[in-house]
This record gives sequence, structure tokens and C-alpha cells, in this order.
Amino acid sequence: MTNIRDIAKMAGVSVTTVSRVINNHPYVSEEKVSAVKAAIKKFNYHRNINAVHLSKGKTHLIGVVVPFSNHPYFGLLIEGIANAALDHNYKLVLIQTNYEETKEMEALRMLEDKQIDALIICSRICPWDVIESYSVYGPIILCEDSRNNKISSTFIDHYKTFTMALDYLYQKGHQQIGYTIGRQTGTNSSQRDAAYKDFLISNALCFEPNYIFTNRFDVEDGVNVAEHLLDMKNRPTALLVTSDQVAAGILTGCRENGLAVPDDLAIMSFDNQPISRVMHITTLEIPFFEVGKKLFQQALNGKEAAHEEVQVRLIERKTV
Amino acid sequence: MTNIRDIAKMAGVSVTTVSRVINNHPYVSEEKVSAVKAAIKKFNYHRNINAVHLSKGKTHLIGVVVPFSNHPYFGLLIEGIANAALDHNYKLVLIQTNYEETKEMEALRMLEDKQIDALIICSRICPWDVIESYSVYGPIILCEDSRNNKISSTFIDHYKTFTMALDYLYQKGHQQIGYTIGRQTGTNSSQRDAAYKDFLISNALCFEPNYIFTNRFDVEDGVNVAEHLLDMKNRPTALLVTSDQVAAGILTGCRENGLAVPDDLAIMSFDNQPISRVMHITTLEIPFFEVGKKLFQQALNGKEAAHEEVQVRLIERKTV
Repeated sequence: MTNIRDIAKMAGVSVTTVSRVINNHPYVSEEKVSAVKAAIKKFNYHRNINAVHLSKGKTHLIGVVVPFSNHPYFGLLIEGIANAALDHNYKLVLIQTNYEETKEMEALRMLEDKQIDALIICSRICPWDVIESYSVYGPIILCEDSRNNKISSTFIDHYKTFTMALDYLYQKGHQQIGYTIGRQTGTNSSQRDAAYKDFLISNALCFEPNYIFTNRFDVEDGVNVAEHLLDMKNRPTALLVTSDQVAAGILTGCRENGLAVPDDLAIMSFDNQPISRVMHITTLEIPFFEVGKKLFQQALNGKEAAHEEVQVRLIERKTV
Repeated sequence: MTNIRDIAKMAGVSVTTVSRVINNHPYVSEEKVSAVKAAIKKFNYHRNINAVHLSKGKTHLIGVVVPFSNHPYFGLLIEGIANAALDHNYKLVLIQTNYEETKEMEALRMLEDKQIDALIICSRICPWDVIESYSVYGPIILCEDSRNNKISSTFIDHYKTFTMALDYLYQKGHQQIGYTIGRQTGTNSSQRDAAYKDFLISNALCFEPNYIFTNRFDVEDGVNVAEHLLDMKNRPTALLVTSDQVAAGILTGCRENGLAVPDDLAIMSFDNQPISRVMHITTLEIPFFEVGKKLFQQALNGKEAAHEEVQVRLIERKTV
């Protein structure tokens, strides 16, 4: 690789002079400028941006950790962050983990190695103390309620939101309410589980373990939920579903098997993805653009821990 | 920022000695190792990966240009590339363009600046000569038929595929066939347009300009197509749809408005996304994993232009 010293030697000038010419510094004689430019052209030399980053300590890259890249929820989150990044001339480094802890560790090490300026973790696997230990190297931002920790976050209060949704279904006359969820672990899932149990207790309702469907991520998982419901003797009359994709699958499965929605089963979901608009699914809208913008701003602003709560909005359609 | 010279000064050793200690080189006295380690700890110094990249000329980052991050087609493509990258310990830098040429130029300049080792362009905007002029800086791989150019690609022959699909619909008795597409420009769209016109001519069918629906990307665009069809006097009996998302929207729109599928309208689409499985849409499967793997391999293998054709597979379901 040609470097600045080769150029200097070729042009018969000092390294400092080459640097001045490259950076359009004044006070360099025309003669030397010509010699340096000719040498640069001869070597087809281009500034190596890693050298620039090395001197400035900035990469203009922000890491984004997601479990899957092809899931619409994370796609919308990435799009939200990417649009904010576009406005500030930053690029995103996508780190897909498939929920493997070693992959999340690699992302943390990229921050340590200054390969990225900040790290946004959309769905965390590593324990809090590990995340905190890496926050000395640069801003780490999470997408979950971190108010009890020293890490910045943009989050939805899932306890509050789940409680609101369950109360809404209860007011519509439902007493047998179940829910579907993705991962069982993680802050968001724990908050939802706590809200569900508190709701049952405060309304003197029984806990039915088979009303809870875990590891449901995609439309096909939703179809399986519907098929499962058909076999149940005492099935729920309403389901709270944590993804529009799963809700679309449940709705399709119900229609194909003669379960009327909302009469036999009410469905209320999360996200307000395009599929929910098209299929008229009642959903709780997550403002992905706002979330992405806040996450990016926190990544940009630096190390002071900050917590930004984002509100969801109920969109009533035809499935409740 | 603390650098290696500060460490050397602090430890009272040469820069070379510090470098040897950092890289676990033998033949350094225990005394000097201790002094260097103490200085490193004192300064909380970490090797700056950009310095490593500068000396090795590699970043282990591959740029991926997509128009949108939240569209399932590009999501699946990113997932395919990301999985191949995971296996080789590479990370992806996502460059979202919203189909703006200036954003694609930024991606090309990242290659020039050595901020990435290679660039995969999933949907191109810049002209061929611009792309070619940047290929001196590193591998550029495209997702379109580039057999007439010096740029590597993994591609589907859309002329061949569209012809095959149109022939299939014709054999099923359809003579009034329309199609929906995203962008009108680009190699893939030109190939499809040529296949459509050649199909009409070879079967002595009339060209109906209002059978072609452009700028259709998402489920909601599909619903609009269905609503548009209702108002047409002489509507097509079959539609070839270039995305399962749009097909899902058309199918939903038809059901809500009393158009029977496939009796009133046959729908054949592309991708084999989960939504097509759930809604039983006849589709042409694109092997995203294989495409992603080939794109990544080409990015890794370097500058020799190569062209990898990928075959689609017809999956017969219930909409034709």
C-alpha cells in the first residue's frame, strides 16, 4: 500500500508538505503542490479513511445489534435509526446475533476497539454488568426500560402498556384473556408477565398456563396458535399478541378453521405494521420513527445515561 | 487520545518495546513488560482497531446498499448476506439510500476510503460507468444481471423467469395477463418488460397499458391495485406480481370486494416470503440464503469479475 512517505520521497518534499497539500493547507509553493499532485496521481494514492479515523478518534459508524435482520419489527427499528443516521451522515454497522451471546460480545468489542462510535442494542442477551463494563468505551443505548441501571435507553413501559391493553379487553367483556410473546426472557417480557399476573389478581381471574404462548415471532407461529386454539376445550376469548405478524397468522388461521374474529376470539396486537392496516387488526402503534430518532440522538450525545420513554397509541380496527 | 508514544514515554521504553508487549512478542524483559503494562493500565489504553486496519489494509466490514431496510425482500437479502458474514467473522455496514443517487455515491466513496473491504449493491441507481470507475478500489457486487459489464453479480435472469411465469399462466387459460412491479427503471425491470412484450407478440395478444401497475412495493400498494381492478371494465384475468407483499394486499383487497381468487383473478407472485405460505399464494421462490451466500463469497473473493446465476422455483398453491 502506498503511503504518505512514498509520496513525499517521489515528490522530493517532506511528509509535512504532502500532508499540507492533501489537506489544502495554504503556504505551500505552487511548484511543490504540482510535484505532490503528480506523485499522488502516479501512485493512484487515496487517503485511507482509517488513518483519518485514527487521528480524529471518530468513525461515523454506529453499531446496531439485532437478533434477526429479516423480522419486520427489527426492520422498522433499523429503518427508524437509519433515517436519523442519514440526516447526520452516519452509517450503521449491522450486527446480527441470532440471540447468541458471543455475537453480542463481538459488538461490544467493536466499541472497545473504536471500530464504531456507539452501540445500539435492540434486544439484549448479555447481563447488565457486562454491558455496563463496556460503557466506558463509548455510548451504549438499549431498547428496553433501563431506569434501574446506568445505561441509556429509549423504551416503552411494557408493564403500563400491557395493563392498559388488558383493561381495555376486560372492559369489552373479556375475562378469559391469553397472550402470545416472543422470547420469555428479557426486561420487556418480564414487565409483560408481571402486568398480566397483576391484572388477573386485581380482577380475581384464574391463571391458565395454557393461555400463554411463548416463542411466537412470525406469521407461521400465529397460524400454529390458531390451530392450537381449535383443540382447546376452554379456550381464551381474547388474545393480546406482541407482534402484528403473529396476529396476522392467528387471524388467517381462525378464518380458515371457522373461528369468527372478534366474536369467537378477539385479537389485539402490537406495532401497527402495514399488514395490520390491511387486515384491519386492532393494534397498539409503536412510533418506530420516533424510537429510531431518539436512539440515534442518544448514541450521538454521549456517555451521560438518559432514559427516554415512548408512548404507544391504541388503533381500534375490527378484531376486538 | 493516548497513543503508543505516550505509553512508551511513561514506561521509559521505546515505542518498539511497547508494540512488542502489546503483540505478545517474546524477548522483552519481564521488567519492561511490567512497566509497559502499568503504563497501559494507568492510561486506560486500548489498541485502536483503526490503527490495526491501517497497517493491515483490512476492515472486515462489507458495505450493503439497500433502498429500504424495512422491506421484507431486502430484509431477507440482508439476512442471507448477514448469515454468510457471521460464518467468516465479517460485519455489514448498512447503507440505506431511499433510492437517492448521492447516498449510493457515499457508499462508493466508503470503498474508495477503505472504510469497507467490499460493497454489495442490492438495487443500483448509479450508471454502469460510475460503478466501474470505483471497482479499482475493491470488489463491488451487484444483484442484477451484469453479464454485459465488468462488475461481479449474483442474479436471477428475470427475462427467462418472467417468460416462464407468463407461459404458465397462458397454459392455465389466461390471455389477459397484467403485472405489477416496483421501480420501472433498472436492469431487472427492463428484462421483465422485454419478456412481457415478447410474450404478447409471440402469442398474438394485445398490449393493454393499464394492465401494468408500477411503483408497487408494499401490501397497501396491493390493496390499491385490487381497488383499481374493480373499476376496470375489461380487467385482466391474471396478474404476475413481483413481490409477495403486494400479492398479499391484492388478495386481501379482492376478498373484501367480492372478487374471487383464482376464478375472477389469478395471482402469481415472487419471493416465497412467510406471508405467501400463510395466505397460500402461488409464488416463485427466490433462494435468499443461497443468494446472500454467493454475494458474500464474491465480495470476499476479490476483483475478478464473476457472474453467478440463481434459479427460482415455482411453488404452486391456491391463487392460480
